[in-house]
Amino acid sequence: MTHAPVVDVLKGQYAEGETVTVKGWVRTRRDSKAGLSFIALHDGSCFDPIQVVALSSLDNYADVQRLTAGCSLAVTGTVKASQGKGQALELEAQSIDIVGWVENPDTYPMAAKRHSIEYLREYAHLRPRTNVIGAVTRVRNCLSQAIHRFFHERGYYWISTPILTASDTEGAGEMFRVSTLDMMNLPRDDKGQVDYAEDFFGKETYLTVSGQLNVETYANAMSKVYTFGPTFRAENSNTSRHLAEFWMIEPEVAFADLSDIAQLSEDMLKYVCKAVLEERADDMAFFEQRINKDVVRRLQALVESDFVRMDYTDAINILQASGKQFEFPVEWGVDLSSEHERYLAEEHVGAPIIMQNYPKDIKAFYMRLNDDNKTVAAMDVLAPGIGEIIGGSQREERLDVFDARLEEMGLSQEDYAWYRDLRRYGTVPHAGFGLGFERLVAYVTGMQNVRDVIPFPRTPGNASF
Amino acid sequence: MTHAPVVDVLKGQYAEGETVTVKGWVRTRRDSKAGLSFIALHDGSCFDPIQVVALSSLDNYADVQRLTAGCSLAVTGTVKASQGKGQALELEAQSIDIVGWVENPDTYPMAAKRHSIEYLREYAHLRPRTNVIGAVTRVRNCLSQAIHRFFHERGYYWISTPILTASDTEGAGEMFRVSTLDMMNLPRDDKGQVDYAEDFFGKETYLTVSGQLNVETYANAMSKVYTFGPTFRAENSNTSRHLAEFWMIEPEVAFADLSDIAQLSEDMLKYVCKAVLEERADDMAFFEQRINKDVVRRLQALVESDFVRMDYTDAINILQASGKQFEFPVEWGVDLSSEHERYLAEEHVGAPIIMQNYPKDIKAFYMRLNDDNKTVAAMDVLAPGIGEIIGGSQREERLDVFDARLEEMGLSQEDYAWYRDLRRYGTVPHAGFGLGFERLVAYVTGMQNVRDVIPFPRTPGNASF
Repeated sequence: MTHAPVVDVLKGQYAEGETVTVKGWVRTRRDSKAGLSFIALHDGSCFDPIQVVALSSLDNYADVQRLTAGCSLAVTGTVKASQGKGQALELEAQSIDIVGWVENPDTYPMAAKRHSIEYLREYAHLRPRTNVIGAVTRVRNCLSQAIHRFFHERGYYWISTPILTASDTEGAGEMFRVSTLDMMNLPRDDKGQVDYAEDFFGKETYLTVSGQLNVETYANAMSKVYTFGPTFRAENSNTSRHLAEFWMIEPEVAFADLSDIAQLSEDMLKYVCKAVLEERADDMAFFEQRINKDVVRRLQALVESDFVRMDYTDAINILQASGKQFEFPVEWGVDLSSEHERYLAEEHVGAPIIMQNYPKDIKAFYMRLNDDNKTVAAMDVLAPGIGEIIGGSQREERLDVFDARLEEMGLSQEDYAWYRDLRRYGTVPHAGFGLGFERLVAYVTGMQNVRDVIPFPRTPGNASF
Repeated sequence: MTHAPVVDVLKGQYAEGETVTVKGWVRTRRDSKAGLSFIALHDGSCFDPIQVVALSSLDNYADVQRLTAGCSLAVTGTVKASQGKGQALELEAQSIDIVGWVENPDTYPMAAKRHSIEYLREYAHLRPRTNVIGAVTRVRNCLSQAIHRFFHERGYYWISTPILTASDTEGAGEMFRVSTLDMMNLPRDDKGQVDYAEDFFGKETYLTVSGQLNVETYANAMSKVYTFGPTFRAENSNTSRHLAEFWMIEPEVAFADLSDIAQLSEDMLKYVCKAVLEERADDMAFFEQRINKDVVRRLQALVESDFVRMDYTDAINILQASGKQFEFPVEWGVDLSSEHERYLAEEHVGAPIIMQNYPKDIKAFYMRLNDDNKTVAAMDVLAPGIGEIIGGSQREERLDVFDARLEEMGLSQEDYAWYRDLRRYGTVPHAGFGLGFERLVAYVTGMQNVRDVIPFPRTPGNASF
């Protein structure tokens, strides 16, 4: 007997009257006075469960009447047009094999009632069985597949940059130390310091905060590359937007300038959002109904909009002329905060903004200095409803300018020896950006907290499961 | 002017006589006595460089004659049929913009000569510019895209299991500790032990050795899932097959048994190897010529072969009856070593083998006990030319059997509380396997050492770049 995914049956891939087997977990059971039961069975293959009609003539109908949320079944039945609301097709059971019971239905943590999102977080191993986390899982998968497809179709190569790194050269944030030293018996050097020469890699080692510097080496050989991997920040940030472990996508393009990479970010965001609208309409309808009523509309708006290019300097003028009272005062040279970004994207423009050419003093050392000597070729994508979602830049490819910048920032050439080599040997203009994957999933689904869009969130004090 | 990838020009996507711009790096320059130069320019988009013909009438022909390997160029020219050997089309330059020189050609580490693979490892930031690492990069990308595509087409969801984990429950190997404690000033508890309650996550934390246990939670809700992410082993193994950081693919399938997962492993390997043969014939021809003359033939054989299912017990009988002298003696109960696996796959069968039903004492605690009470539903895929490439099993889904096994192995139920929950609430038969991505890339390309198929290898004593 064919084991059919629920989605295939609901989509009509089996004719009415055909016999199929579906396998999954009970969401609800309802007994009718007419002496039959309706079971909603889900298997994760789509948002909707399938309605199984269990007649009292089944051998094990007494057992069927004891089924509760979470029990696992293999149901062989006949595909029929449904009389009930909410589905076109249902399955009239010929047999119901009860594969696994729920040990104690009264204490089953995912019993069929509405749970708070915070409660679900405590049960990260069971929460994918819920409507909301199931939908998040499918949309997250859809986005990741669309990202790989987008880059693959355009001739980009996926590069796995290292997770373990021996130096904090990126300077993007606090790092986690990685070690195999015996913590109760640390080796010491002759100055009494911990002797990392004895450690696994022979020196101090950390978890990466970004693959950018590494992936630049591949852009300078293969032209178009991207990373898609985990990155880490040991920041004590307990916010709805921060994780200690999160996934990042970082394309890097040779012979590209700021304008090219701005266009790439716009094309990519539209492509992946369109994929979700087309492929996950079922899940998006749920998010619209239960999580955020604007979520579909704003995705459609993003796909159809033209992203507005705006210079930082112009943005400052707009903010100052707005007459708005901001918590953080605005003047040229300050970093834009979330309230500024959202005012610009949501109120002033009403569309995604690609903000460009920031003051060099608030940006990283590797960004390309503009001719004004005051700004760098950096860009952020600011989206209505979330603010900054992408940050990128053209990289400084001129060795003399780069070295001057290193010196200005008190950084040593030696620490950046291999990075400088890219500028010594056939240097080319190149640019790239970083997209935090969980922020994208949160934006697309409307979920308020990034902890609910990654399977097992890691945050200060929490590495459960 | 269109910036055209070299691959598009070589494939004839531009008509003869059309003007295009290509951008890339010089591989070689050859001056003809007839007063013109031939430049081989590569941009990573395919194995072959494009031949640029530079006539002496160019304004900067004197500079062109100083070009060396690694210089970066933007060449605008006319597509022409090539008179030379080795390519159908070439580009006659109208202009050559020299974007970046090589600082000192005599000391440029990637100068145009044959380097040893060990030498290239010292220059991991420049080696993607070589033929061999460029080819590896394209094949590695091709494999990763094919893996995502294979699973996506079959309704699997990509699940990102956590990299940071608070317990060594998988028991697959030595782990790296992750910490933000001040190593020079470690907090102590009242017993004088290091007080990990003060650490970032409030307890001891490690890098994951496998996502399997975590991803089982998603299989028990979404039915078909897979991981594709980095895993870590702090083993002091300096071999050509071991990395401290490597990528792993781990599908996990609900309502599946050992036979289902064996079929999945065969289907997946054939699918991804076929993708390489079809999409990267250029790179494979290079590997065949320079690295391993059997590499294409054995990929074709794998794609066309039927994988042979063989029980461990039968394999022992075959090995014992073989009359071969093995370094490690063979008797029922021993783990098969590489010499045994290769004898079986290469000499006895001459095709990939899916070895099944191993003695329980040499396999992990979570594997499903067979009815003989002696073996478990485990499987390894053994491929001619490499040996074990995949390991998997059906998981023990029966709570009572699982608990008995935990007790037998001296493991505590408490440590596996969430894993046991999957068996308490709607348990289902499920199975999965793990594929080490670098071993697959090494197998497909014929590269001898996994250090040369990952961009920045991490091994004992080495976390450079």
